[in-house]
Amino acid sequence: MRLASKILLPRGFEFSAATAGIKVSGSPDLALALAPHGANAAAMFTTNRVVAIPLQCGREHLRKTGGRVRAVVVNSGNANCATGDAGRFACERVCGSVAKAAGCEQDEVFPASTGIIGVPLPADKLIKAIPQLLSARAADAEAAERFARAIMTTDTRMKTASARFGAATLFGTCKGAGMIHPRLATMLVYLFTDAEARPRELGELLHDAVHVTFNRMNVDTDTSTNDTVLLLASGAAGPPKRKDFAAALQAVCESLAKQIVADGEGVKHVVNLRIDGARSDAEASQVAKAIGNSMLVKTAWAGADPNWGRVLAAVGYSGVAIDPAKVDIFFGKYAVCRKGVAARFDEETLHAYLSQPVFDVRVTLGRGKIGATFWTCDLTAEYVHINADYHT
Amino acid sequence: MRLASKILLPRGFEFSAATAGIKVSGSPDLALALAPHGANAAAMFTTNRVVAIPLQCGREHLRKTGGRVRAVVVNSGNANCATGDAGRFACERVCGSVAKAAGCEQDEVFPASTGIIGVPLPADKLIKAIPQLLSARAADAEAAERFARAIMTTDTRMKTASARFGAATLFGTCKGAGMIHPRLATMLVYLFTDAEARPRELGELLHDAVHVTFNRMNVDTDTSTNDTVLLLASGAAGPPKRKDFAAALQAVCESLAKQIVADGEGVKHVVNLRIDGARSDAEASQVAKAIGNSMLVKTAWAGADPNWGRVLAAVGYSGVAIDPAKVDIFFGKYAVCRKGVAARFDEETLHAYLSQPVFDVRVTLGRGKIGATFWTCDLTAEYVHINADYHT
Repeated sequence: MRLASKILLPRGFEFSAATAGIKVSGSPDLALALAPHGANAAAMFTTNRVVAIPLQCGREHLRKTGGRVRAVVVNSGNANCATGDAGRFACERVCGSVAKAAGCEQDEVFPASTGIIGVPLPADKLIKAIPQLLSARAADAEAAERFARAIMTTDTRMKTASARFGAATLFGTCKGAGMIHPRLATMLVYLFTDAEARPRELGELLHDAVHVTFNRMNVDTDTSTNDTVLLLASGAAGPPKRKDFAAALQAVCESLAKQIVADGEGVKHVVNLRIDGARSDAEASQVAKAIGNSMLVKTAWAGADPNWGRVLAAVGYSGVAIDPAKVDIFFGKYAVCRKGVAARFDEETLHAYLSQPVFDVRVTLGRGKIGATFWTCDLTAEYVHINADYHT
Repeated sequence: MRLASKILLPRGFEFSAATAGIKVSGSPDLALALAPHGANAAAMFTTNRVVAIPLQCGREHLRKTGGRVRAVVVNSGNANCATGDAGRFACERVCGSVAKAAGCEQDEVFPASTGIIGVPLPADKLIKAIPQLLSARAADAEAAERFARAIMTTDTRMKTASARFGAATLFGTCKGAGMIHPRLATMLVYLFTDAEARPRELGELLHDAVHVTFNRMNVDTDTSTNDTVLLLASGAAGPPKRKDFAAALQAVCESLAKQIVADGEGVKHVVNLRIDGARSDAEASQVAKAIGNSMLVKTAWAGADPNWGRVLAAVGYSGVAIDPAKVDIFFGKYAVCRKGVAARFDEETLHAYLSQPVFDVRVTLGRGKIGATFWTCDLTAEYVHINADYHT
């Protein structure tokens, strides 16, 4: 599946952004996506037991409408998480105001928030900006870009991906740079298409695509309380071939996942981590998670250091019953460990290879025939600075 | 149990150190502890599936002798891990040389190695230094200190603790600053006593003490391939009261565990992490592990930032089926989160509290009556520098 090099928009959606004044920077912090004729919807949410208010609210709205959405409203700068009844009330007030302005039911509004946890959501500021938000909406690439930028927090780059499949178009955008750990959906991801599909079918397609994309990447050890992936289908382009839809969805999700890792907080190296020779997909994930979460592996990568012993140690404590004598490790095409023992390699060559912004690491477990690819990154002093100095 | 303020040595042990030339720094890198009349022994090893050669060898020796040790030989600067048959041969050659020089069986020698993984162990260098190692041995505090220093790698401080119980004395020393994650034994720990006890009893006492001390601390996410805790009992002081022995063992292990965390790579803040209201000890550990492994929590601590939302998020993704509405979080005596919602607190006061080198964090889960204390630390830019620049 080839992705488009520029933003392509599906029919049936309008986008907008505004500055409500939550972010101290004064950057846009309120975003709206509108489906004037409505859209079928499927969503996936964080597996964290601490679930932010807008997720609880959005899940309930989808249940009540049977998977119909007219408006998506997102604020950045405040997660509306651990905010109790007041947070719930604030979220419903914002949804109510959007519904009134857009001429739809309150349950047809899908809310989201991202930012600091535990700070009351300033609903009045958001509500005040809604008229402006509605009037600025448009169905063009510039408006979609404004949406994509307004949902950013510590992201340094806007993230979008588009694809065509048959008569239909898929546009995706997301935000996320920290608190990125593959456990169900990751951060805020919005996928818009004009293909026609029922909510149940959308749910199946979304689950399959997320499983091999957003669930296979991480930046740090932390699963967010606000992770949401939402897929909306306006139906304006008619029913697609399911296979084409699935391929487009996976390609767009994979592109967005890689964009998240590449823009991860302080990230200097993106690592394509391939696990082969596993007995199951879950086993491959467990090994990839141990490697991708290892502070020692990630700091070695930051230093472009071919310290494969740390990778082997992480494989060893992953919880998978590996036999070290069957483990091979490759950095790019270079074997650094064969059957659990050091292979001959030239350190300078390896250091040069690992100095590239993107490189490949492959671990073969010698247990089975299953393989999977993951996307992870290094751990730099910049990550520490960003997160030690982030204001509560 | 009060610990002694200086090194106290049990009868029946001699200590020594030498410079074999493995460390490029030229610091002592070979250590010996000798029990001239032998000692009963119990040991615990890493749970990592990748097990370094000396651990395989030491475990086999203990099994063959039924838990008798005459000599402990430790080298620093090389882990002798992932070194294959050559590593095994090198380890046995070193044990054989020590046995010959000490006049005991090769199986009575307990070996250990710590340092870089995957580099061949230079056995000849070690063997050449053994005569000097034997001749420099002594049964005094200075010799014990030389032992304690020679086992260090990235440690900046020697770590020792001593206690008296009845007529007996317990002396412990350890090394460890990185690759510290609580899963069974952690790094190299040596405990010497003149109490009289059978290997089986020593094993039980050691297991109990390790469970509540070394298994309850971490520096980073990484479980080493060389973790070893060894307890030796010369018997020179006769049989102890088991309760007193257990208390002394726990106190010495707890002191050493805290010293490891305090000397953790780049550590600026040591955190006494108390989990209460769990249904089991395993549940408390699981929550503590999620918090102590969280890069976002650890970086917030580095910045003395009262960002309790990250702690709550880690509790939420720990895998324990917590109800957020029952979770309270305290920084010292200050409540920052009550029933999953922000509590009122003064940020300046909290920032000052968290700026201390040691502080308390308490999380109550509201699920049961079990509580446990853990020791963890912050994640600083220095940790990244140390581990990104560490030479392979």
